[in-house]
Amino acid sequence: MEITTTYTIETLGTIAFAISGTFAAMQKRLDPFGVLIIAFVTSIGGGTVRDMLLGDTPVAWMRNVNYCLLILFTSIATIFFKTHIKKFKVTLFLFDSLGLGLFTMVGVEKGLLFGLSPGMCVALGTITGCFGGVIRDTLLNTIPLIFRKEIYATACIIGGALYFALVYFNVENNLARFIVIAFIFSLRVIVVRYKLALPKFTY
Amino acid sequence: MEITTTYTIETLGTIAFAISGTFAAMQKRLDPFGVLIIAFVTSIGGGTVRDMLLGDTPVAWMRNVNYCLLILFTSIATIFFKTHIKKFKVTLFLFDSLGLGLFTMVGVEKGLLFGLSPGMCVALGTITGCFGGVIRDTLLNTIPLIFRKEIYATACIIGGALYFALVYFNVENNLARFIVIAFIFSLRVIVVRYKLALPKFTY
Amino acid sequence: MEITTTYTIETLGTIAFAISGTFAAMQKRLDPFGVLIIAFVTSIGGGTVRDMLLGDTPVAWMRNVNYCLLILFTSIATIFFKTHIKKFKVTLFLFDSLGLGLFTMVGVEKGLLFGLSPGMCVALGTITGCFGGVIRDTLLNTIPLIFRKEIYATACIIGGALYFALVYFNVENNLARFIVIAFIFSLRVIVVRYKLALPKFTY
Repeated sequence: MEITTTYTIETLGTIAFAISGTFAAMQKRLDPFGVLIIAFVTSIGGGTVRDMLLGDTPVAWMRNVNYCLLILFTSIATIFFKTHIKKFKVTLFLFDSLGLGLFTMVGVEKGLLFGLSPGMCVALGTITGCFGGVIRDTLLNTIPLIFRKEIYATACIIGGALYFALVYFNVENNLARFIVIAFIFSLRVIVVRYKLALPKFTY
Repeated sequence: MEITTTYTIETLGTIAFAISGTFAAMQKRLDPFGVLIIAFVTSIGGGTVRDMLLGDTPVAWMRNVNYCLLILFTSIATIFFKTHIKKFKVTLFLFDSLGLGLFTMVGVEKGLLFGLSPGMCVALGTITGCFGGVIRDTLLNTIPLIFRKEIYATACIIGGALYFALVYFNVENNLARFIVIAFIFSLRVIVVRYKLALPKFTY
Repeated sequence: MEITTTYTIETLGTIAFAISGTFAAMQKRLDPFGVLIIAFVTSIGGGTVRDMLLGDTPVAWMRNVNYCLLILFTSIATIFFKTHIKKFKVTLFLFDSLGLGLFTMVGVEKGLLFGLSPGMCVALGTITGCFGGVIRDTLLNTIPLIFRKEIYATACIIGGALYFALVYFNVENNLARFIVIAFIFSLRVIVVRYKLALPKFTY
């Protein structure tokens, strides 16, 4: 049951980020293989950095061909269905936010599995959630979204801390996971919808 | 015999990419040490990412000082002989294409050594072939060549798949390797010569 | 005694780079969490790349929560005290140079610990010293400082070689370390002060 849920969360996160990567690459007018590679990198980037930091190698996607096939099919399907999607930017944004919540949860749990302290688990969750997008934006030659606006990483950090708070208060595990994912997704959507942002530094 | 051939392919690939990295860095007018570092990164970048993903550490170039010396001498020689080279861009392009073919072959074989499935071997070959150039372009602050034009990664993927097709049909191993390297090199040269490219996405 | 010194050097380097990262991020007007992340990346980037290349995982900062807290407090303190600092760029530069010297020393010693040859130890020291800044600049979307001006990596390489020369001539270890750190720091400051630079390539 536990393992099934983890697997489901990881699968959904992979799909969400594959879609967001495909959209971002199409906006930059890359050729089809470029689009596939960016979809790939967005989807597996966070988990790959996480596994390399932990030394859990060969990294996850190399051990399971299913994730690669999933990304391939998702990306191709996204390319074909794009003409039916009117609100391009909104769609990219929603899937990116969903992936963020799902992968943060995956990272926190992997940290627990490796016996890391709660603070490190939250850091690992943030890396898993954010680094796919960071690598995507770096390759596409823009300052990563995460450093520029909205409380992107902040949502992961608060969400990760929330998970440990919920577990501390004996909330059932699957419920806690769902709350955390929904919280990160909602926080980001609300922040963007109402144009909230952390104040910037000037000098 | 087998090992000697692998070693030869790796040596030639290292030289080819050291030359291509040196040319790319000189175009950006870096200082001599900047040029050496870019030559280094272009040459070992793909293999380093491959080894970190596999967990085969310390990574290859750390275990064998010969590769480092080879890159150093190649890069310095390239700097000194550059005045004799008229067609700068063409030379950069030809060596980059040659390195692409050679390193893709090296990566596919390392995947086989680690018992990965054919699909993963092709992915590993593509990473080994392409990532030196990706890191080079990212450090030089341009959108990596691979994502912009020509069928760069595509050539690696088709070439990698060709290798497994040739092995399946019992083609002798060294002949198969030669065919794959020549195929990737030729495919890229032909594509660029006749200005072929995959169609881009618009919306 | 030995271990205490190593620990002190690493702690001082972490503080120096956390300050330099915070200043660089504030210059780019990132939001507070963006600033913290850049401070983090600048401070742990070099050591993280070093540990991943060596396969010494989980990487250093994951095993010791103290470094993370140190970076957090340093970064926050820097943000609050910034109004008292007049010469912003000079401060950033001095701390960056200090961190460079300290971390190069840490990297060289880790190479010795892993039984690498002197040349590889110097390379590892250079990576530990430089890569935090390289990742910082790449994320902030500028060509890394290291490739553009001053003899940044050069200082690390000469400093690392100097360490082995001093050890060869039986200079006491802690004195050798201090000389190397002071040498790298001074070399960079002098070069920038007198606007010295390696000649660039043109063609």
